[in-house]
Amino acid sequence: MSRTSYDRYLTVFSPEGRLYQVEYAFKAISASGHTSIAVKGKDTSVVITQKKVPDKLLDPDTITHLFSLTPTMGCVMTGLLADARAQVERARAEAAEWRYKYGYEITPDALARRMANINQVYTQRAAMRPLGISMIIIGHDTELGPQIFKLDPAGYFVGFHATAAGQKQQEAMNHLEKKWKRLAGNITDVDAAQVGNRLGRAEVIDVAIEALSTVHSTDYKPGEVEIGIVSTSEDEDLKTRGQWRVMDKEEIDKWLLAYGEKD
Amino acid sequence: MSRTSYDRYLTVFSPEGRLYQVEYAFKAISASGHTSIAVKGKDTSVVITQKKVPDKLLDPDTITHLFSLTPTMGCVMTGLLADARAQVERARAEAAEWRYKYGYEITPDALARRMANINQVYTQRAAMRPLGISMIIIGHDTELGPQIFKLDPAGYFVGFHATAAGQKQQEAMNHLEKKWKRLAGNITDVDAAQVGNRLGRAEVIDVAIEALSTVHSTDYKPGEVEIGIVSTSEDEDLKTRGQWRVMDKEEIDKWLLAYGEKD
Amino acid sequence: MSRTSYDRYLTVFSPEGRLYQVEYAFKAISASGHTSIAVKGKDTSVVITQKKVPDKLLDPDTITHLFSLTPTMGCVMTGLLADARAQVERARAEAAEWRYKYGYEITPDALARRMANINQVYTQRAAMRPLGISMIIIGHDTELGPQIFKLDPAGYFVGFHATAAGQKQQEAMNHLEKKWKRLAGNITDVDAAQVGNRLGRAEVIDVAIEALSTVHSTDYKPGEVEIGIVSTSEDEDLKTRGQWRVMDKEEIDKWLLAYGEKD
Amino acid sequence: MSRTSYDRYLTVFSPEGRLYQVEYAFKAISASGHTSIAVKGKDTSVVITQKKVPDKLLDPDTITHLFSLTPTMGCVMTGLLADARAQVERARAEAAEWRYKYGYEITPDALARRMANINQVYTQRAAMRPLGISMIIIGHDTELGPQIFKLDPAGYFVGFHATAAGQKQQEAMNHLEKKWKRLAGNITDVDAAQVGNRLGRAEVIDVAIEALSTVHSTDYKPGEVEIGIVSTSEDEDLKTRGQWRVMDKEEIDKWLLAYGEKD
Amino acid sequence: MSRTSYDRYLTVFSPEGRLYQVEYAFKAISASGHTSIAVKGKDTSVVITQKKVPDKLLDPDTITHLFSLTPTMGCVMTGLLADARAQVERARAEAAEWRYKYGYEITPDALARRMANINQVYTQRAAMRPLGISMIIIGHDTELGPQIFKLDPAGYFVGFHATAAGQKQQEAMNHLEKKWKRLAGNITDVDAAQVGNRLGRAEVIDVAIEALSTVHSTDYKPGEVEIGIVSTSEDEDLKTRGQWRVMDKEEIDKWLLAYGEKD
Amino acid sequence: MSRTSYDRYLTVFSPEGRLYQVEYAFKAISASGHTSIAVKGKDTSVVITQKKVPDKLLDPDTITHLFSLTPTMGCVMTGLLADARAQVERARAEAAEWRYKYGYEITPDALARRMANINQVYTQRAAMRPLGISMIIIGHDTELGPQIFKLDPAGYFVGFHATAAGQKQQEAMNHLEKKWKRLAGNITDVDAAQVGNRLGRAEVIDVAIEALSTVHSTDYKPGEVEIGIVSTSEDEDLKTRGQWRVMDKEEIDKWLLAYGEKD
Amino acid sequence: MSRTSYDRYLTVFSPEGRLYQVEYAFKAISASGHTSIAVKGKDTSVVITQKKVPDKLLDPDTITHLFSLTPTMGCVMTGLLADARAQVERARAEAAEWRYKYGYEITPDALARRMANINQVYTQRAAMRPLGISMIIIGHDTELGPQIFKLDPAGYFVGFHATAAGQKQQEAMNHLEKKWKRLAGNITDVDAAQVGNRLGRAEVIDVAIEALSTVHSTDYKPGEVEIGIVSTSEDEDLKTRGQWRVMDKEEIDKWLLAYGEKD
Repeated sequence: MSRTSYDRYLTVFSPEGRLYQVEYAFKAISASGHTSIAVKGKDTSVVITQKKVPDKLLDPDTITHLFSLTPTMGCVMTGLLADARAQVERARAEAAEWRYKYGYEITPDALARRMANINQVYTQRAAMRPLGISMIIIGHDTELGPQIFKLDPAGYFVGFHATAAGQKQQEAMNHLEKKWKRLAGNITDVDAAQVGNRLGRAEVIDVAIEALSTVHSTDYKPGEVEIGIVSTSEDEDLKTRGQWRVMDKEEIDKWLLAYGEKD
Repeated sequence: MSRTSYDRYLTVFSPEGRLYQVEYAFKAISASGHTSIAVKGKDTSVVITQKKVPDKLLDPDTITHLFSLTPTMGCVMTGLLADARAQVERARAEAAEWRYKYGYEITPDALARRMANINQVYTQRAAMRPLGISMIIIGHDTELGPQIFKLDPAGYFVGFHATAAGQKQQEAMNHLEKKWKRLAGNITDVDAAQVGNRLGRAEVIDVAIEALSTVHSTDYKPGEVEIGIVSTSEDEDLKTRGQWRVMDKEEIDKWLLAYGEKD
Repeated sequence: MSRTSYDRYLTVFSPEGRLYQVEYAFKAISASGHTSIAVKGKDTSVVITQKKVPDKLLDPDTITHLFSLTPTMGCVMTGLLADARAQVERARAEAAEWRYKYGYEITPDALARRMANINQVYTQRAAMRPLGISMIIIGHDTELGPQIFKLDPAGYFVGFHATAAGQKQQEAMNHLEKKWKRLAGNITDVDAAQVGNRLGRAEVIDVAIEALSTVHSTDYKPGEVEIGIVSTSEDEDLKTRGQWRVMDKEEIDKWLLAYGEKD
Repeated sequence: MSRTSYDRYLTVFSPEGRLYQVEYAFKAISASGHTSIAVKGKDTSVVITQKKVPDKLLDPDTITHLFSLTPTMGCVMTGLLADARAQVERARAEAAEWRYKYGYEITPDALARRMANINQVYTQRAAMRPLGISMIIIGHDTELGPQIFKLDPAGYFVGFHATAAGQKQQEAMNHLEKKWKRLAGNITDVDAAQVGNRLGRAEVIDVAIEALSTVHSTDYKPGEVEIGIVSTSEDEDLKTRGQWRVMDKEEIDKWLLAYGEKD
Repeated sequence: MSRTSYDRYLTVFSPEGRLYQVEYAFKAISASGHTSIAVKGKDTSVVITQKKVPDKLLDPDTITHLFSLTPTMGCVMTGLLADARAQVERARAEAAEWRYKYGYEITPDALARRMANINQVYTQRAAMRPLGISMIIIGHDTELGPQIFKLDPAGYFVGFHATAAGQKQQEAMNHLEKKWKRLAGNITDVDAAQVGNRLGRAEVIDVAIEALSTVHSTDYKPGEVEIGIVSTSEDEDLKTRGQWRVMDKEEIDKWLLAYGEKD
Repeated sequence: MSRTSYDRYLTVFSPEGRLYQVEYAFKAISASGHTSIAVKGKDTSVVITQKKVPDKLLDPDTITHLFSLTPTMGCVMTGLLADARAQVERARAEAAEWRYKYGYEITPDALARRMANINQVYTQRAAMRPLGISMIIIGHDTELGPQIFKLDPAGYFVGFHATAAGQKQQEAMNHLEKKWKRLAGNITDVDAAQVGNRLGRAEVIDVAIEALSTVHSTDYKPGEVEIGIVSTSEDEDLKTRGQWRVMDKEEIDKWLLAYGEKD
Repeated sequence: MSRTSYDRYLTVFSPEGRLYQVEYAFKAISASGHTSIAVKGKDTSVVITQKKVPDKLLDPDTITHLFSLTPTMGCVMTGLLADARAQVERARAEAAEWRYKYGYEITPDALARRMANINQVYTQRAAMRPLGISMIIIGHDTELGPQIFKLDPAGYFVGFHATAAGQKQQEAMNHLEKKWKRLAGNITDVDAAQVGNRLGRAEVIDVAIEALSTVHSTDYKPGEVEIGIVSTSEDEDLKTRGQWRVMDKEEIDKWLLAYGEKD
């Protein structure tokens, strides 16, 4: 009951030093019923997320959790979809401003930092609630290669080799860690970067599909998942190499088949 | 009781990560006592809604839930009618601004996205309550053909082959899905788009009338429903082809008769 | 008790999707102790309302519920008289602005829509309470003939053949509907517009007087009612034809007598 | 107890459609312990009010409830004296602005309407409380002759032949009505205007003194009442004819004596 | 308990029509533990107040309740001293503005009215609390002679022949009234102005000292009272005649001695 | 419990006419655990305060309660140190503005009055809390000699011959009064100014050290106290004569030794 | 329970003179689960903090608590990381502004004071909550040598020879004090500055590692701690001498080894 006193005023600490509104925003993310996975390898980063079409008459092309941010960067948004759109528009505006000001594309880490700072402001000022969204950005950094950054409503962001967000975030993270260990040969002290660097485009996609399929114990059909990819692999078509793109149904079908046949 | 703590402040999450005010706005829509249906086919999209004249001395011409947005786009508004008018005026202004800025008409999806973004803002800021309105936009996209978009107070929007809003939304959605299945020959995995593409102007209108009549178990008379249509069918009169128009009583009578005689 | 949580904040939905403040404003109207009636016919629209002079030493000329809006439009205000004056001033300003901007008089429906939109704003924003007033506008539309529009605090407005507002609104509406049925020859499915179109100036006035007299079971004296009229009938004096005017005591006396003698 | 919920927020309706703050402002008026009377006749309007000097060492010249508004208009203020002064200053400013804008003096009804509109705003917006003041304006209208208008905190105003305000308002109103009836010869249906028009300057003053004396059962001494007058009577001194003036002690003494000797 | 509802919001009436915050400000004045007396005569007005030095090491020259406002006007402030300073600065600014605008010094009544109006605003708007101060202004009016005005937190002000403020206000007022009666020869209906006009400079000072000494049953020493004076008496030194001045310790000693020897 | 109603709103009186927030700010001062003493004599004023170094690894040079305000004026701040810094910065800005505007240094009393006025504003407006700081200013006034002024959160300020602030304020004040009495030869009615004027630089410092040592029953070591001084004595080094300076450890050691040897 | 009344309004004192929100912000720091240590010596200052990688797939290069502020100054932030980033950005902006305005780098104490003042404002105004961050700045002052300043959410800042922040702040402070004592030869009255001045670059690093290892009873591995350093020692590489730098894993490994071998 004493909580009710704190959560009505966004910018106030509870006696335990907690910011309840931020914690509730996290609840909004896990309650969204979606799980998203991101994996990066030597030359490729992908995001995969469930595509739930609650209604059969809904036009599935109009519903997506994947958004492009710059030609070489995209993201998967998990949580309140209306909030997601608002955050994506802001991210695009920030990227455009950077391009205009500095004459080159913003890097994934710079964009992640900028968006995280905006989120922090929502937790300190009284004017607006925090956004109920977890944002995972993937992209290609000319110096650092494939990149994954995850931002949360608290204004916290960090890079990953592989990560997850949403309903089954914890299960997916556990699965990915075990996978990494297995890839490293079941040694105790895995060097995650080293393992990642051994993964080519196909392996990265496979790991991502496996993670989503496993935590939901589901064999997904092409229309049930969305996959976004940025790859500089030679396997990637020349004209999309290094670009953010969302796979079409045929390509997804191909990868799902490949994953299915593996077993 | 603990709810009272959250719903007084629009922009605040409850401990479960919910935004109560937005949920109450949905209640305002279903409590309005109206049902609206939208269906699209190969070349035609229609909306049908009940025309309730609570008072016999009321001038029925002055009461409507259908509004034109641009020459080729219209909408049906379900919920608080006063809020509806405010939202329609905003939508028209947005469409006019687009035309002015870019020199061509806004497309249905762009208008739907813009209006949804405005709704999202009402859920994040403290200044105004969300609007108690479900907006279904129909129109013709030169590339994509007939379009249906539904927006809700949460700032969420999505495209449909056929959809419904208001009091009997759930029943109507169920009916439409079953209808689609029947049209597809009762196979399990219906491709909604494919089924829709087989529907001509007359079929689309028939499906819409059937849906509304069925969920309310009523044989409507011409003065009891409103029908809005955008059709590029050759059956459509040349001068209204591709334009949003509201059917007059005679035309509605014709279609209701056709539907009645079918049985 | 749980209501107290909602009605202090104007712009907030209750869990049932209701806007309590708007409902309380309706109470303020019915609690005002006044009833107003409006009736339109072929070429005439009239409003009649009670003139209560609570105090015998009050100057009855200074108390009125009828207000002119433009030369050809007037209204009867039912509810909080101080709010009424504020709304009338706004309506006049809107009409004047229209005339200035477009070069011709605003039409009754345009003015009604504009005022209703202003009322809607009071229900969505926190700055002001809704006005405790029901406004019935009458006027002559060059295309559509006599017009009656009723606006309420919710921002809802609609046209009528005959309507009522205030304390005995329901009784008056019932009476008018029965009257219409009687005029149509007691058939079930009355076409209200058709019946209205058969009513000349004298009949319209008679119907209005009858309605007010019946619901209050009172034989009114000239000083006890106010009548406003806009008529293009040939019975109307040439210099006031098509103009809004408030009847003087002598004329009211004449019509009351005519009504009395009818029985 | 449930009242406490409503009266803290000025601009909010209670569930019964009442505005409590406005009602409390009326309490502030009747609790002020003062009674004021206004009477008008053929060519004269007067206000009379008690002059209470709570403290014998107070300078009685510095305490008054009578204020001039324009050369030909004045008022008596009943209620919170500090609020009265604020309202009088506003009224003078409004009158001055009118004179500046239109080139002639504001009429009593125009000033009363303007001030009432200002009061209405205090009841609709949250920024300020309503003023705890009843304002009675008297003046001479070149067309309509003597005028009395009474304004209240609700923004309501109306003209009177004779009226009262403050602690004994009800008793004074009753007394004045009976007086009017007696003047009319004890007929039932008194025409208040006709009776008023028979009253000359002396009679008007006498009626006012009688009303105040009777409701307080007091024979007032010159220093205990204040009388303001606007008269175009030939009995009025030429240089104050048609002007607002406050009687000096000698003149009040004369009229009190005249009233006393009458019995 | 029900009071707590009203006193948190400055500008709101209680159900009895009272403004609690204003009443609490009066408590702040009487709780200050100070009493001030003002007396005026034929050609002199004086204020006397206690000089309490709570701490023996305090520099008594830095603590005062007397303030000059213009060369010919001063005041004694009773209540919260920090508030007093703020009000004095405002009064000086108002006086300076008057001098600048009109070319002559503001009169005591004009300054008192202006300051009272400012206080009224604090009681009507929500932005600031009322000031916990009673202000007694004395000065010389070229037409009306010596003047005393007392202002309170409610925005009420009035002139006096003699008055008091603070802890023993009521006792002092009673004493002064009795004194006036005695000076008038113990007749019942004392004309306060007439009595006052018989008092010369010495008598005025004596009356003031007597009043303060009596209500506190104390024989004051020079360092224990402050006396401010504006006198046009011939007894007054030529270069301070008609000017506000604060007596030095020697002069106070002289007058206290004179008072003491009288008995 | 009823207190909770008042202390949340800074600018509001309690029913007893108290301003709780201001009283709580005083608590913040006494709860700071510090005591400061100020003493002035013929030609010298000093402040002494405890230097508590809660942590042995803290750099003692970075912690101080003494601040210079102008070259000839300084202060000791007792209470919340973060608030102290804010107030000192404001005081310096005010002093600089004065110098710029008038061409000479601000005097101690003018600066004290200005800062007190700023504090009063914090007690009347809702925007900021009062500062939890007691400020004692010392300096040299070319006309009045050494000066001590103490300001509190209520906006009250006054001059002293010797004073104290903080945890042991009351005990220190009592000690200083007794000391003054002893210096005066144990007579009852001590003239504090006269006693003070007999104190040379060394005596003033000795009295201050004695007061602090006595109330805390501690023999302070050089690193445990801070001493600020403004002296025009001939004992003062020529280049710091009349200037504010903070003593270094060596000098403090010298004075503590002198005090210790005295016993 | 009574606390709930105070902590919702940032700028308000509790009856005990406390500012709860500030205290809760301290809780947020200690609840962060991190400990940071800072030590300075003759020519070197270092900060060491734990590097916790909660997730094995997280990219450890993207997570840090060390930030550069100017080329010669850096800091370790302990508490809410999102708040930390906001404060660091502000600090850099302040440093840049100083450089621009004055033409030379800001000194550590000036930057610490400026940031502390900004924190104080958050505790006095209602607009924003205090930041849940403890900031320890290290740097080289050309006059004073190595510097350590610690700032807290209350706006308090102070210099140290060695200090700690976060979860084990108290234990680390105790350890460091004991260490200093041991370094001084176990004498009672340690001169912290003198001890510090005997520490060279290697000793300073060793003391810091020892402190962190001891309070957490952990032998840290290179990837588990972060070390920031500013050193003018000749042992420091010429091109980083006097510059802030963060050690790479190899260097950390070297120092951890050296510490481990010492035992």
